[in-house]
Amino acid sequence: MIESKSNQQVKRVIQLQTKAKARREENAFVVEGPRMVSETPAHLLRKVFVSEHPTEEVEQALLSLDSSLVEQVADSVFKTMSETVTPQGVLAIVTKPEYGLETFFRRENGLYLILENIQDPGNLGTMLRTAEGAGVDGVIMSRDTVDLFSPKVVRSTMGSLYRMPYLITDNLAATINDMKRRGICVYAAHLQATEYYDELDYTKGSAFLIGNEGNGLRPETASLASSGLKIPMAGRVESLNAAMAAGVLMYEASRQRRS
Amino acid sequence: MIESKSNQQVKRVIQLQTKAKARREENAFVVEGPRMVSETPAHLLRKVFVSEHPTEEVEQALLSLDSSLVEQVADSVFKTMSETVTPQGVLAIVTKPEYGLETFFRRENGLYLILENIQDPGNLGTMLRTAEGAGVDGVIMSRDTVDLFSPKVVRSTMGSLYRMPYLITDNLAATINDMKRRGICVYAAHLQATEYYDELDYTKGSAFLIGNEGNGLRPETASLASSGLKIPMAGRVESLNAAMAAGVLMYEASRQRRS
Repeated sequence: MIESKSNQQVKRVIQLQTKAKARREENAFVVEGPRMVSETPAHLLRKVFVSEHPTEEVEQALLSLDSSLVEQVADSVFKTMSETVTPQGVLAIVTKPEYGLETFFRRENGLYLILENIQDPGNLGTMLRTAEGAGVDGVIMSRDTVDLFSPKVVRSTMGSLYRMPYLITDNLAATINDMKRRGICVYAAHLQATEYYDELDYTKGSAFLIGNEGNGLRPETASLASSGLKIPMAGRVESLNAAMAAGVLMYEASRQRRS
Repeated sequence: MIESKSNQQVKRVIQLQTKAKARREENAFVVEGPRMVSETPAHLLRKVFVSEHPTEEVEQALLSLDSSLVEQVADSVFKTMSETVTPQGVLAIVTKPEYGLETFFRRENGLYLILENIQDPGNLGTMLRTAEGAGVDGVIMSRDTVDLFSPKVVRSTMGSLYRMPYLITDNLAATINDMKRRGICVYAAHLQATEYYDELDYTKGSAFLIGNEGNGLRPETASLASSGLKIPMAGRVESLNAAMAAGVLMYEASRQRRS
């Protein structure tokens, strides 16, 4: 059992929890709680740490795991490794999932979400979770989007991180142009657009382009879109929360594709 | 200028920021930042505190306010009064807005959101903001819902708090039954429902009943609804985030009512 906070493995987990750079260098991240650990695909699971006195739910989750990967940690040490206020007694180091472009574009008339510089971890996580629910084929993020593998994002994806193909692009403009060449209609959500989102047809290949929470899309990014769209606002609301706007759009596409 | 952290007004603000009980007893709450302060209706504004070195944006916001309500505070003291990591240099004590039932039910075929035991402040704030955008007439909350006037909820409403009629009920069952008697169809969003949300008609008086983030609606509450509904989920997503589910439903009602 690990009993010291200066143990190398403990330090490594803390680095992965707190530093995007460490996550990049190791190509790994940390997940917490019995549910997230259980949902981790076996080939991505590197190491599991369990607290000294695990709950029954944690014991249950451990049953299905390769026991050679599991290490016990003193409760006080486990607390320093956890990013949550009430640690759930199990956490794991996980290899970042990777998706090739063929996964992204395997379906004809695919549905996509393109995110520029989203900064709120809860928003990004919720967008991934909602994208999976709405049947989206892939999520594209600009490099300056908040780190997908930061603890808060991971937590709010509720496991969708393991299932939703994603792509982080250094050149968002080139990616948008590539998608357009593939016949995907790219819709920029912005407040100055003239068309309402529910007057457009998303049954063919479609992508929704969503901008930063405070500033919206950069004009040069919005100008690359095939078309603009806006969500009607009653009252004196200027805009919806970015994740909410993405969700409303993705579920409208889902609705059209089902009916 | 207030220069001491033990000043009575400073202590009062801190109480209002941190304790729902204090907010209840004083029938008041605190808003922060030039935008929220500017949006506060004049008759609700009790007192404004501004930091020693206000930004231009704060100066601008102060111009439209009754100067007899404004008091300056030393920067270090202002910091202790603020609930945000980077204080915006202005905050105000505000009387809770009140809405009578006639505001709620003034429109024929109104649209409503009914919330049971929502616990995440960001979710509640986002729901209010989205409700205003979707043209909802009122939001009903069970008493055990997170305090609408806690700093995080206030912040995430982005001002909708001042415009969206709300009602906090001690008896959710009685309120639901009252709404049904008024001819409003109450739809319970839950995972076991058989009908998809986009197959139902929301152009008549409608209310969406949304339950707690972790546990959903209590069975006895769900059983009071006129009808159940579910949002289709692709992939392996079990449910959407509660605010997202509410947003998708409210915007589907908005879409039907516009088309």
